Amino acid sequence: MLSKNTIKFFKSLHQKKYRIAHQQFFVEGRKSVLELLESSFVTDCVYATQEFLDTYGDRLRQAKVSFELASPAQLESMGQYQSNDSAIALVRMKENQLPEIQSSDWVLALDDVRDPGNLGTIIRIADWYGIKNLLFSKQTADFYNPKVIQSTMGSFTRVNFYYCDLAEVLTALNLPVYGAFMDGENVHSIQSVEQGVLLMGNESNGVSQELEPLISKKLAIPAFGQAESLNVAVATAILCDNLKRITSGK
Amino acid sequence: MLSKNTIKFFKSLHQKKYRIAHQQFFVEGRKSVLELLESSFVTDCVYATQEFLDTYGDRLRQAKVSFELASPAQLESMGQYQSNDSAIALVRMKENQLPEIQSSDWVLALDDVRDPGNLGTIIRIADWYGIKNLLFSKQTADFYNPKVIQSTMGSFTRVNFYYCDLAEVLTALNLPVYGAFMDGENVHSIQSVEQGVLLMGNESNGVSQELEPLISKKLAIPAFGQAESLNVAVATAILCDNLKRITSGK
Repeated sequence: MLSKNTIKFFKSLHQKKYRIAHQQFFVEGRKSVLELLESSFVTDCVYATQEFLDTYGDRLRQAKVSFELASPAQLESMGQYQSNDSAIALVRMKENQLPEIQSSDWVLALDDVRDPGNLGTIIRIADWYGIKNLLFSKQTADFYNPKVIQSTMGSFTRVNFYYCDLAEVLTALNLPVYGAFMDGENVHSIQSVEQGVLLMGNESNGVSQELEPLISKKLAIPAFGQAESLNVAVATAILCDNLKRITSGK
Repeated sequence: MLSKNTIKFFKSLHQKKYRIAHQQFFVEGRKSVLELLESSFVTDCVYATQEFLDTYGDRLRQAKVSFELASPAQLESMGQYQSNDSAIALVRMKENQLPEIQSSDWVLALDDVRDPGNLGTIIRIADWYGIKNLLFSKQTADFYNPKVIQSTMGSFTRVNFYYCDLAEVLTALNLPVYGAFMDGENVHSIQSVEQGVLLMGNESNGVSQELEPLISKKLAIPAFGQAESLNVAVATAILCDNLKRITSGK
């Protein structure tokens, strides 16, 4: 039987300070919880409806994850979903460390992308384009924010990420760094690129001045109309698509 | 002096049924209100702070738009912005009619894109890629929804749109129709395309079965990783970028 304290504990995890204090976060919804079980995240417990347990109980037992019965109303009071008739999982945060980067990998670096919806959408885009390694400036939205997790649509389980001083890490990596700039080279005209880091800036201010000297090549998305800018997640997708097209030789 | 009734009237315009009844909607924020003045929309009145009037009063007079003084607190209670220290405009809805389409234009058609944020982001993308003419199925989110207007970042002023029976209109237009499908042709491999209609489907269900027979060519965004899908606005951006790249001969 689910205790009031458990519900209260989940409610606290909506706030970053409690996630940090407990080194835990939550994942809700059928698809995300099932993808979680296939991932390298350590799941402490899954709270689920009878229907979810009837259907997926074996998967939980196989993954050696403990579980507890909960009603949809309880799941809804624990998470942020307006309706949740499946499950919510309590998960351990990972250690913040630099992932191992091969020279054949693309790396995506985010310089102060502050909106959780944008961050989540960008993680989903990275996963679509097979970019496994992400670097985040310390002012970037929190990966473990429930809105981020939700908008990744399960992709949060398949990327590595590191909150860091970007200037320091980009310098140490010593890979070509591509940045999105209005006055950059038209990405449609570029014939070849070396694999490296795609650096995307803040929603309002773009890439910070401190990082500009580290850029090897400025890229621009060609405009054909009159909009002044694109949403940062949309711009990330277009650049990833072009860079992957160029490096795959098409 | 702004009356309580005016504030109440604006509050009613948050709901579609009152927008339809009055054939009016609102536009808030400095950038969007200023772009509105440059557009073909008829603005009935601008409610603005003293500071906005001091800076942009001449532009309002030039555009022959009547205006009234309002406090930030009043603007915030009229619109949906949490903070608004500039302006909010009362604007007339346009007649719903098929725009004139040249054979050299790209057309973007949306089949039941229901999320207002997605619709707004897509309008901004269309404006970036110079796509002026949009066709919306009747179940697509309402163009005049404040969240749509907000997320276009001013681009709502530069597109034509028509809510219609897509099957009927696409048949009558008799242009090539390109649709996004998982099993379509890799858009990176396509060497040439004729200008036509890009048709994007619903967030969950894609293009409806009824419209599938009208598709001339199925397009696919190549996946390099494991994400199962992309957000519809992100997919629209990637396809627009590729189609514009191909038709501009790069």
